[in-house]
Amino acid sequence: MEYRRIKDQDKDGDAVHDDVESLREKSRSGSPSNMVALGGGAGDRSKWKLKSVVTLALTVLTSSQAILIVWSKRAGKYEYSVTTANFLVEALKCALSLAALARIWRKEGVTDDNRLSTTWEEVSVYPIPAALYLIKNLLQYYIFAYVDAPGYQILKNLNIISTGVLYRIILKKKLSEIQWAAFILLSAGCTTAQLNSNSDRVLQTPFQGWLMAIVMALLSGFAGVYTEAIIKKRPSRNINVQNFWLYVFGMAFNAIAILVQDFDAVMNEGFFHGYSLITVLMILNHALSGIAVSMVMKYADNIVKVYSTSVAMLLTAIVSVFLFGFHLSLAFFLGSTVVSVSVYLHSIGKLQR
Amino acid sequence: MEYRRIKDQDKDGDAVHDDVESLREKSRSGSPSNMVALGGGAGDRSKWKLKSVVTLALTVLTSSQAILIVWSKRAGKYEYSVTTANFLVEALKCALSLAALARIWRKEGVTDDNRLSTTWEEVSVYPIPAALYLIKNLLQYYIFAYVDAPGYQILKNLNIISTGVLYRIILKKKLSEIQWAAFILLSAGCTTAQLNSNSDRVLQTPFQGWLMAIVMALLSGFAGVYTEAIIKKRPSRNINVQNFWLYVFGMAFNAIAILVQDFDAVMNEGFFHGYSLITVLMILNHALSGIAVSMVMKYADNIVKVYSTSVAMLLTAIVSVFLFGFHLSLAFFLGSTVVSVSVYLHSIGKLQR
Repeated sequence: MEYRRIKDQDKDGDAVHDDVESLREKSRSGSPSNMVALGGGAGDRSKWKLKSVVTLALTVLTSSQAILIVWSKRAGKYEYSVTTANFLVEALKCALSLAALARIWRKEGVTDDNRLSTTWEEVSVYPIPAALYLIKNLLQYYIFAYVDAPGYQILKNLNIISTGVLYRIILKKKLSEIQWAAFILLSAGCTTAQLNSNSDRVLQTPFQGWLMAIVMALLSGFAGVYTEAIIKKRPSRNINVQNFWLYVFGMAFNAIAILVQDFDAVMNEGFFHGYSLITVLMILNHALSGIAVSMVMKYADNIVKVYSTSVAMLLTAIVSVFLFGFHLSLAFFLGSTVVSVSVYLHSIGKLQR
Repeated sequence: MEYRRIKDQDKDGDAVHDDVESLREKSRSGSPSNMVALGGGAGDRSKWKLKSVVTLALTVLTSSQAILIVWSKRAGKYEYSVTTANFLVEALKCALSLAALARIWRKEGVTDDNRLSTTWEEVSVYPIPAALYLIKNLLQYYIFAYVDAPGYQILKNLNIISTGVLYRIILKKKLSEIQWAAFILLSAGCTTAQLNSNSDRVLQTPFQGWLMAIVMALLSGFAGVYTEAIIKKRPSRNINVQNFWLYVFGMAFNAIAILVQDFDAVMNEGFFHGYSLITVLMILNHALSGIAVSMVMKYADNIVKVYSTSVAMLLTAIVSVFLFGFHLSLAFFLGSTVVSVSVYLHSIGKLQR
C-alpha cells in the first residue's frame, strides 16, 4: 500500500526523459513552425507520433511501476517513510527539468518560451494541483477506517469516472456518446479485472467510506484535469519550465507532509532510513512516470492518460504471470475483454464525433 | 440443472399467446395490407410496437422461468424425467398453435397462408432445428465429464457469440462495428454477472471440454438462426402453421429422447412420475416462452432474442433479491453495467449502420 501512495502523488510531470525529449526536438525541426501549439493543422502527423510515444512511455513506466511494487512486496517490507520518497521524486523531477532546460538553452538560447523566470500571474495556479494531491493523500489515512486495502483499490476506479466528468466540465471538451459509453466500460472493466473472492466486502462500505472515496476521486480527477489546463493554457511555453514550477510546489507540499506525518521517524532514524535498491528504483520509476504523465497532458489529454494507465494495469498482470508465476483469474480475462472493447470504442467514437 | 435442459430445448416457438395474438390482429387491421411482410414501409410503427411487445413478453417469461427454477430448487428436488417434460412442452405448444389456427379459420376462413396442409418442399427443413437441439441435449450429458454445473453455466455464454457469428454467416445480415463490440460486451457482461468464488475452476477445463462447449454453442446458435431462416422465408405464411410443423417434429424428436434416456424410468414409474405443481407451472412457462421466442424470430431476430434473454437474467437476479433475499455481488453490478452499456451501444449502433 505504501508504494501506491507515491503513485497517486505524481500525476503531474516533468519533461527531461531523454528519448522523448530528443524525439520532440526531431519532430519540431520536421514541422514548419512550433508543432507544440495545439490545434494547428501543420505537423499533425508528427504530433500524432509524439502523442503515441509519450502514451507508450507512460504505459510501460506504469506497468514497471506495478511490477516493482510486487517485487518489493516479495522482497519483504521496507520501513522507509513514504513522504520522504515522495519528496525525493519531486526533487528528482525538478532536477531533470533543469537539466533538460540547460540543454535547450545551450542549443536554442534563452527565449520567452523557455526562460525560467515567470510572472505572478503565470505561477499563481501552479500550487493548486500539488495542494490537492496533499489533501487527497492525507484523506487516504482516514479512509482506511472504513475500507480495507483491497476495497480501496476497487474504489479507486471511481477516479476514471471523476476524471471523465471533470474533463468535460472544466476543460469543456466533449466526448461523443460512444466515448462516454467506452469510459463507463473502462471503469467497469478495470474493476472486474481486479475482482477476487473478497471483493464483495466493498459493498458493505459505510456511507462515510463511499463519501470519502468519492471526494478523493474528485480531488484526484480535479488535480489531473487542472494540471492539463495549466499546461495547455500556454501551448508555446516550454514544458520543462512548466514542470519545474509544478515540481517546486510539489517539493514544498511534500516537505509539509514530512513534517505532518513522519517528523519523528525522520528525526530519530534519519531521512533515508529503510531505503534499499528497490526504493531507489521505485523513486526513479515514479520520477520518469511523472515526466511521462506531464508529456501526455501536454501533447494528449487526461483521457489518454487514464486509458494508458488502465492498459498498463492489464499488461502488469500478464507480465506477472511470467515473472512471478501469477495465475490470471476468469474475472481478469473478462475485465480485459471489456477494457479492450472500451479502447476500441474510444478510438472509433473519436471518428464519429 | 435439470430444469435448464428444458429451457435450452425450446428455442423455437408457438403463437397462440392471447395478448400477442390479439395485438397482431389489431395492428394488421390498422395497416393497409399485411404488415407481417417484412421490410415493407407500411405499418412500420405497428411493426415496431409488435416487436416491442413480443420482446417484452419473452423477457418477462424468461425471468419468471428462472424464478420458477429457484423456487423449485428451494422446494426440494423433483425426480421427474426431464425428457417427458420436454415432450409435454412441445405437445402443449402444438395444441396452442392448433387452437389459435382454429380461431383464425373461424374469423378469416382458410386461405393459402393459414391452411395447415403443406408441401414437402416447405416442410422438409422443419425437422432440422429439433434434430440439432436433440443432438445438443444428448451432448450435454457428456460435457459434465469435463465441466461442473456452474462451469457449464459460464461456458453457455459462448452461445451469445456463436449466435452472432452464425446470424452474420447464415442470414447474411450485417451488424455494425459498434453492434459487434456490443455483442462481445454482452457476452462478457453476462459472464461477469454470473461470477462467483468457484468460477475460476472453469479455466481448468480440459481441451475436450472446451471443444464440446464450442460445438454445443454452435449447435444451439445454428438451431436458433436456422429457425429464424425457416420462419422468415415465407413472411406471409401464418406463424401458427409454421410453429405447428416445428413442434410436430419437436414432439417426434423428444419422443426419441424419452426412448434413449428415460425409457426404464417411464416404464417402471410411469410417464408423470415425480410431477408436482411447480413442474406443471414450468411446463406452462416453457411453452409460453417458446411461443414468445417464435414471435421474436418472426417479427424481430435472433439478436433481439439474445438481448432479451440476457436482460431477463439480470432482472431475475434483481427480483430474487426481493423474493428470496438473495445478495447481489459486486461482479453482478459490474456485469449489469456492461450489459446495460451493451444494450445502449446496440441501439445507437443500429442508427449508425
